[in-house]
Amino acid sequence: TYVRGIHTVTLIPGDGIGPEISSAVMKIFEAAKAPIQWEERNVTAIKGPGGKWMIPPDAKESMDRNKIGLKGPLKTPIAAGHPSMNLLLRKTFDLYANVRPCVSIEGYKTPYTDVNLVTIRENTEGEYSGIEHVIVDGVVQSIKLITEQASQRIAEYAFEYARNNQRASVTAVHKANIMRMSDGLFLRKCREAAEKHKDVKFTEMYLDTVCLNMVQDPTQFDVLVMPNLYGDILSDLCAGLIGGLGVTPSGNIGANGVAIFESVHGTAPDIAGKDMANPTALLLSAVMMLRHMGLHGHAKKIEAACFDIIRDKKVLTKDLGGNSKCSEFTEAICQRVLDLD
Amino acid sequence: TYVRGIHTVTLIPGDGIGPEISSAVMKIFEAAKAPIQWEERNVTAIKGPGGKWMIPPDAKESMDRNKIGLKGPLKTPIAAGHPSMNLLLRKTFDLYANVRPCVSIEGYKTPYTDVNLVTIRENTEGEYSGIEHVIVDGVVQSIKLITEQASQRIAEYAFEYARNNQRASVTAVHKANIMRMSDGLFLRKCREAAEKHKDVKFTEMYLDTVCLNMVQDPTQFDVLVMPNLYGDILSDLCAGLIGGLGVTPSGNIGANGVAIFESVHGTAPDIAGKDMANPTALLLSAVMMLRHMGLHGHAKKIEAACFDIIRDKKVLTKDLGGNSKCSEFTEAICQRVLDLD
Ligand SMILES: CC(C)[C@H](C(=O)O)[C@@H](O)C(=O)O
Ligand SMILES: CC(C)[C@H](C(=O)O)[C@@H](O)C(=O)O
Repeated sequence: TYVRGIHTVTLIPGDGIGPEISSAVMKIFEAAKAPIQWEERNVTAIKGPGGKWMIPPDAKESMDRNKIGLKGPLKTPIAAGHPSMNLLLRKTFDLYANVRPCVSIEGYKTPYTDVNLVTIRENTEGEYSGIEHVIVDGVVQSIKLITEQASQRIAEYAFEYARNNQRASVTAVHKANIMRMSDGLFLRKCREAAEKHKDVKFTEMYLDTVCLNMVQDPTQFDVLVMPNLYGDILSDLCAGLIGGLGVTPSGNIGANGVAIFESVHGTAPDIAGKDMANPTALLLSAVMMLRHMGLHGHAKKIEAACFDIIRDKKVLTKDLGGNSKCSEFTEAICQRVLDLD
Repeated sequence: TYVRGIHTVTLIPGDGIGPEISSAVMKIFEAAKAPIQWEERNVTAIKGPGGKWMIPPDAKESMDRNKIGLKGPLKTPIAAGHPSMNLLLRKTFDLYANVRPCVSIEGYKTPYTDVNLVTIRENTEGEYSGIEHVIVDGVVQSIKLITEQASQRIAEYAFEYARNNQRASVTAVHKANIMRMSDGLFLRKCREAAEKHKDVKFTEMYLDTVCLNMVQDPTQFDVLVMPNLYGDILSDLCAGLIGGLGVTPSGNIGANGVAIFESVHGTAPDIAGKDMANPTALLLSAVMMLRHMGLHGHAKKIEAACFDIIRDKKVLTKDLGGNSKCSEFTEAICQRVLDLD
């Protein structure tokens, strides 16, 4: 259903450098003749009936209709009480899996080479339940909520992902030695999913051990699946291994094909509007989106063009070690896309 | 009180390679004429009245009397229900601060150089409360417990540690954007401690951001203080940066001078008894212990000897990249200690 015709995608440019990097992506998609039509929507939290924070109805309607979104960075809410829009989007569209492929980028130097792994984070519950209480003065509890349903769903997703992306192994990351019941439940569901997917190797590892091993030799890892907070941590750690949030794509996946792909870096207000931003993370997220939609040819071409330009080192934005403008970097990728045709 | 005379220390050699590396440490201490007398105790969980697991009374009595302990690795409890002895020791002696200095070791190659930081982990509560419930079938909650008292104690400790060890800054690591009440309380106590210690710079950082920045440039960090689970993760991550648990010392600090210093690596049953183990982590933990006791001269000499031998690369155990035996490595350090006299 996805492969033919023109597909409309909800574009949330976001704040700060969001609009610039979004138009960079649009230009590159145009050069690549990717069959995508963008429907721009603004998401700024609004207060709905009953005082509940919600995303604007026209953005929600657009996503409900298009199912697929691409999102730039959003300002962090400063006023207390105002929720993170990122969290609200995950919740509103039940985007239960956060997927982050971390692959070393040739020519972009970091202490590691040959990193090629994917973190899959449960995105809806766990430590992010938002349930907290003061028990007595000076004693606070936060509740980590783990359900069979969400654990099973993410475990299944991880194995499906591994199979669909020719990945050999899945590692469940946990602290079931400490949180025996909650992480224990999560782990049990991973084991059950492993039983059903015998073609994919399954291992289990403590979160602390994963961190230790990760910084010593990340090449030993393939697909990693884990509860919400552990994913928050590990996905950023792994992004660091390949060069940071400026070059790391991310996808938030829900049921029935619904998904929002996003760059996870900040809004960089200091350079916003100055034609200095690096669009790579958003571009690679858009490439993930194309793959999700089955548009593998376009994905491959755009990705190759981006990696070629980075490897060439001639036209790079400042954060990548060059001194070109965002528009020049974008132009170079467009040109390369045309050359690849 | 500590500096003169001979001090008795409780030695818990532990399991697997524990006894070998313990006797290596004893030999080196002897060569250095460190004024330590060892009182060996075995800790194997026993069931006390009422069925509660406890550490053997003679080990407890020894620690109560000596206040200072040195501990090798302990077997992980296999039988479900049997608690981790490491956790039990922390609890029994209220060892509220886990301190891990991570300093790059000259001559031991890792992707990083010039790492020089200390993680300080709250060791008694948080995600390690052990309180968990099944709410309804398939829905489990684990409770993270944060108290004002424990947060204040660890925050104070971090700043005292920074001051006493000539460290310029303390970073509080948290997720108060998600766990507003619990991590919020922890963070508030850190801010209050910072107010009292204006000579030490204070910063706050999200755990995910710390992980991201840590693998990109660990030299930007100095002292880090954080709740229990975050400390579990970060301390292992940082150990990885300098070469792993085989070279990383650790101390568990309680009130009134009580402390247990320990190597945090495993028991390595595969090489136990084969004279192949690396005693470095336990030795450096023992050096931390000497400093804790005010025996700075002995600490400095033993540490220098150990680092010299590693830098020389002539006599190294297998895990350090050499092919010498534990006894040979130990002998080389002893010799070096004598040369330094
Ligand atoms: C923005 C913030 C709420 C979020 C999180 O903690 O999940 C961020 O760190 C992320 O990883 O998307
Ligand atoms: C042994 C285990 C219970 C422990 C923990 O999770 O705290 C270990 O990982 C540690 O860091 O000392």
